[in-house]
Amino acid sequence: MCPQAFQDNYPDDLSHCYGCGRLNPHGLHIKSYWDGDEAVCRFNPQPYHTAIPGYVYGGLIASLIDCHSTGTASAAAHAKAQEDGASPKTPRFVTASLHVNYLRPTPIDDVLEVRAVVKEMTGRKVVIASRLMAGGQVCATGEVVAVEMPKHLMPE
Amino acid sequence: MCPQAFQDNYPDDLSHCYGCGRLNPHGLHIKSYWDGDEAVCRFNPQPYHTAIPGYVYGGLIASLIDCHSTGTASAAAHAKAQEDGASPKTPRFVTASLHVNYLRPTPIDDVLEVRAVVKEMTGRKVVIASRLMAGGQVCATGEVVAVEMPKHLMPE
Repeated sequence: MCPQAFQDNYPDDLSHCYGCGRLNPHGLHIKSYWDGDEAVCRFNPQPYHTAIPGYVYGGLIASLIDCHSTGTASAAAHAKAQEDGASPKTPRFVTASLHVNYLRPTPIDDVLEVRAVVKEMTGRKVVIASRLMAGGQVCATGEVVAVEMPKHLMPE
Repeated sequence: MCPQAFQDNYPDDLSHCYGCGRLNPHGLHIKSYWDGDEAVCRFNPQPYHTAIPGYVYGGLIASLIDCHSTGTASAAAHAKAQEDGASPKTPRFVTASLHVNYLRPTPIDDVLEVRAVVKEMTGRKVVIASRLMAGGQVCATGEVVAVEMPKHLMPE
């Protein structure tokens, strides 16, 4: 049985994100999974996701790091709640800040892999550190501060 | 006569960027212009550019800040070269780092406006600070470190 992606646990009315929503037909459909203590996301860029010829667009890299990190925050918070004896619904996280360092051009003719770890977890805030690899090299690193989505943003 | 967008001065073989390339038929076609000392970019998000219902996807905001900032770096470097008596081709800049703070959810039913200023210009490096507005409020701020594209990345 295939494991379910973090993002596929979001409720239907929070599953339209352009980056990772399973119900957005125009979107990127970014999917994240546990691999031990790390969360992993793999993505095949399309030829039109280019920046300069041969290399991936930085905005796509930022999008992958963003949705993979909020997904990882959500899954980590859910796991912690279960450990604590609660079994709430999977919480949805939003991005408070996103930082990406582009270390080298990212080749477009390879699968991109983003690996993330939970760096800090305090109350409703989770900090996620990540690295994006392609062609056997780390091409970018990311840090996202994710916060649990406030209730007033929930669709009615 | 309408002014030409910064990105429309890039040479053809560097105009396929998914964010701002005029020759990428799938892309966002981000365009930037001077408005006094600031550079301004306006963008109409599509309904599918959503994160949670009613609000803009953070990855799109990161993309707007990214391409608007590298475009502004290019235009500022070109202007400086002209002041210095040189008249080179418009240089192309790439992103070394991208930082976005998401201050509040960005409403999707409004035109997004990004305004950027040159914060620092040293050799081949330009630092650009920006703010993204929608619905009369600043919804996000950005800082991009842009560097002039190394020659070995130029298409042959």
